Amino acid sequence: MLMIPGPTPVPEQVLLAMAKHPIGHRSAQFSEIMAEVTAQLKWLFQTQNDVYCLAASGTGAMEAGLINFINAGDKVLVGDNGKFGERWAIVCETYGMDVERVKAPWGEALDPEVFRAKLEADTAKEIKAVVVTHSETSTGVLNDLETISRYVKAHGALMIVDAVTSLGACNVPTDAWGLDVVASGSQKGFMIPPGLGFVSVSEKAWAAYENAKIPRFYFDLKAAKKNLAKNTTPFTPPVNLIFALQAALGMMQREGLENIFARHQRLTDATRAAVKALGLKTFAPDGNASTAVTAVDPASIGAEDIRKAMRTNFDIALAGGQDDYKGKIFRIGHLGFVHDRDVITAIAALEATLQGLGHGDFESGAGVKAAAAVFQNA
Amino acid sequence: MLMIPGPTPVPEQVLLAMAKHPIGHRSAQFSEIMAEVTAQLKWLFQTQNDVYCLAASGTGAMEAGLINFINAGDKVLVGDNGKFGERWAIVCETYGMDVERVKAPWGEALDPEVFRAKLEADTAKEIKAVVVTHSETSTGVLNDLETISRYVKAHGALMIVDAVTSLGACNVPTDAWGLDVVASGSQKGFMIPPGLGFVSVSEKAWAAYENAKIPRFYFDLKAAKKNLAKNTTPFTPPVNLIFALQAALGMMQREGLENIFARHQRLTDATRAAVKALGLKTFAPDGNASTAVTAVDPASIGAEDIRKAMRTNFDIALAGGQDDYKGKIFRIGHLGFVHDRDVITAIAALEATLQGLGHGDFESGAGVKAAAAVFQNA
Repeated sequence: MLMIPGPTPVPEQVLLAMAKHPIGHRSAQFSEIMAEVTAQLKWLFQTQNDVYCLAASGTGAMEAGLINFINAGDKVLVGDNGKFGERWAIVCETYGMDVERVKAPWGEALDPEVFRAKLEADTAKEIKAVVVTHSETSTGVLNDLETISRYVKAHGALMIVDAVTSLGACNVPTDAWGLDVVASGSQKGFMIPPGLGFVSVSEKAWAAYENAKIPRFYFDLKAAKKNLAKNTTPFTPPVNLIFALQAALGMMQREGLENIFARHQRLTDATRAAVKALGLKTFAPDGNASTAVTAVDPASIGAEDIRKAMRTNFDIALAGGQDDYKGKIFRIGHLGFVHDRDVITAIAALEATLQGLGHGDFESGAGVKAAAAVFQNA
Repeated sequence: MLMIPGPTPVPEQVLLAMAKHPIGHRSAQFSEIMAEVTAQLKWLFQTQNDVYCLAASGTGAMEAGLINFINAGDKVLVGDNGKFGERWAIVCETYGMDVERVKAPWGEALDPEVFRAKLEADTAKEIKAVVVTHSETSTGVLNDLETISRYVKAHGALMIVDAVTSLGACNVPTDAWGLDVVASGSQKGFMIPPGLGFVSVSEKAWAAYENAKIPRFYFDLKAAKKNLAKNTTPFTPPVNLIFALQAALGMMQREGLENIFARHQRLTDATRAAVKALGLKTFAPDGNASTAVTAVDPASIGAEDIRKAMRTNFDIALAGGQDDYKGKIFRIGHLGFVHDRDVITAIAALEATLQGLGHGDFESGAGVKAAAAVFQNA
């Protein structure tokens, strides 16, 4: 039972769609599927922009979203309050961009006012792009993308977003918030296995593309744009993952965006309430909790002991901490094909695990009770 | 029924392996699978070198194989006798390499002696790498990689090989031939759907890596190397395609390399004999016929008419010509999970199609008879 922030559980009908025999990717039949999937993606991204499917992980999609629109030497502000923010700063530096990190400690949200101050001070318009990780998977923090993007829009720089774990779990209204580049990955809110990356590109980003000089071939998004106009891809796409995507996005459309976001909010509230009722600390603050993943700080109890017991005794996979937080926190994924029952299950098992490790200093059933209360009031 | 050079038919047991629920890619269970798959890949590549799995198409794997080991400004010889050779020349130029194309017309093999002459003349050792497409998918030509790589080895340059359609269909003894970088893709001889690229890297190529300066992050193979040492990958791998790979490579190991190559040779000989018996011309010469795909020149008969009738009347997908050869040739894929019955089926349908188009100027059953004769004598 996967309760990690990716790969996430995959519905049976999506697995079966994926198990169909592949078809030729240059066939009319496949082009029809690409056309449908593209329309579905635009719906999920809440955008009129093109959304491209890449045979790559989310990191590949994000790299494509950076190197097609920024030049070496360009100044970029990169939000860095976790492993993924840090990664995008490194990617930008790898390509010779002039990176200024806007930092917050792991477990805290980026301060939009720091972005505002730096952008307002940049009267020479040297800042070409701002890069923000919406849902920081390593910490469970949801950054205030709406506010940051408002400041970026006022300045004129490109707003480039890692929405790898937020898309499909949190509201990401690409056009309404003016997000120029939004990257995501399949094994998260999309409810399909890993192997597909997605990236949406605004007209403003395409204007920047015209001056972009970093060499690229596989990740050259102009090739993707040209081919998508014919409902195809420049290189062989992962045909079976596209079948899976079509099925999963169909399920999501039937559920509806509002219901999807409400479900994720409910699961998040229930998980956080339950964790607190069990005497553990949530790592991210209440006001900036990602609806994709909840990181938990078990203080003196070993995070790895908890994960091991959960896996061994209940066959439930939780994610560990990353980098400095390895062994210090654990993370409960609750995005994608996850429902109330899954959270109740994980919380019940967590209770039993804590008791088994000799840390049952809470009323028996306190976690399940807290989660159930959230579900009843939702 | 797929008779195209990728995606190729996928065995049921591979589709079912792929349809299993994903597992966490940072789990011990997944690392065990990576270890097994890596050993299987080394067997197929006939190498002691590492073989890396990338979430990318074959083009992505090949790009990684170029940009990790060659610098901008470096002189490279690129064999160009079809669409893919041409593509690698463009990739090299995109990254600022000093490309010299060694050309042959589409449908003809590269002349190894031209490589020898250029390499021998290069006493200053300015040529850093030679890039050759082993099986040129666009024309069905098999280039004489063994001879070319012998000349490259004598010179000292890196031998970089596109084995996208040759691996698993033709003999590619990486170590015996001294191939420094060998790239391939999943939807070909590997019998699995598209979405995985593979690349093997020799010690000599790793030495060149130390001086390689082209910026790269997602395709940085040192990250793949570091992670593979721990049986993992730097970024989320396409877990379900790895399940499929494990199943498919298991089938291949049970069949055995010699039997796999003999089967592909038999299918190729049968296809070519049958095509000729039907009065059509094979596009590649007998001495340089790829055992992955046979391109057919139907002269005055419309190649697209043949493909359309095959698809409409018999639900058999053949590939068309590419670029200048669009509409002029068609291509029969016979690699991967393909057996005598598939070739007999395709040939019988092709006979009926030609008769239906008014081009039955051959003895009825001539194609099937010719193919059957090859099978009987094999």
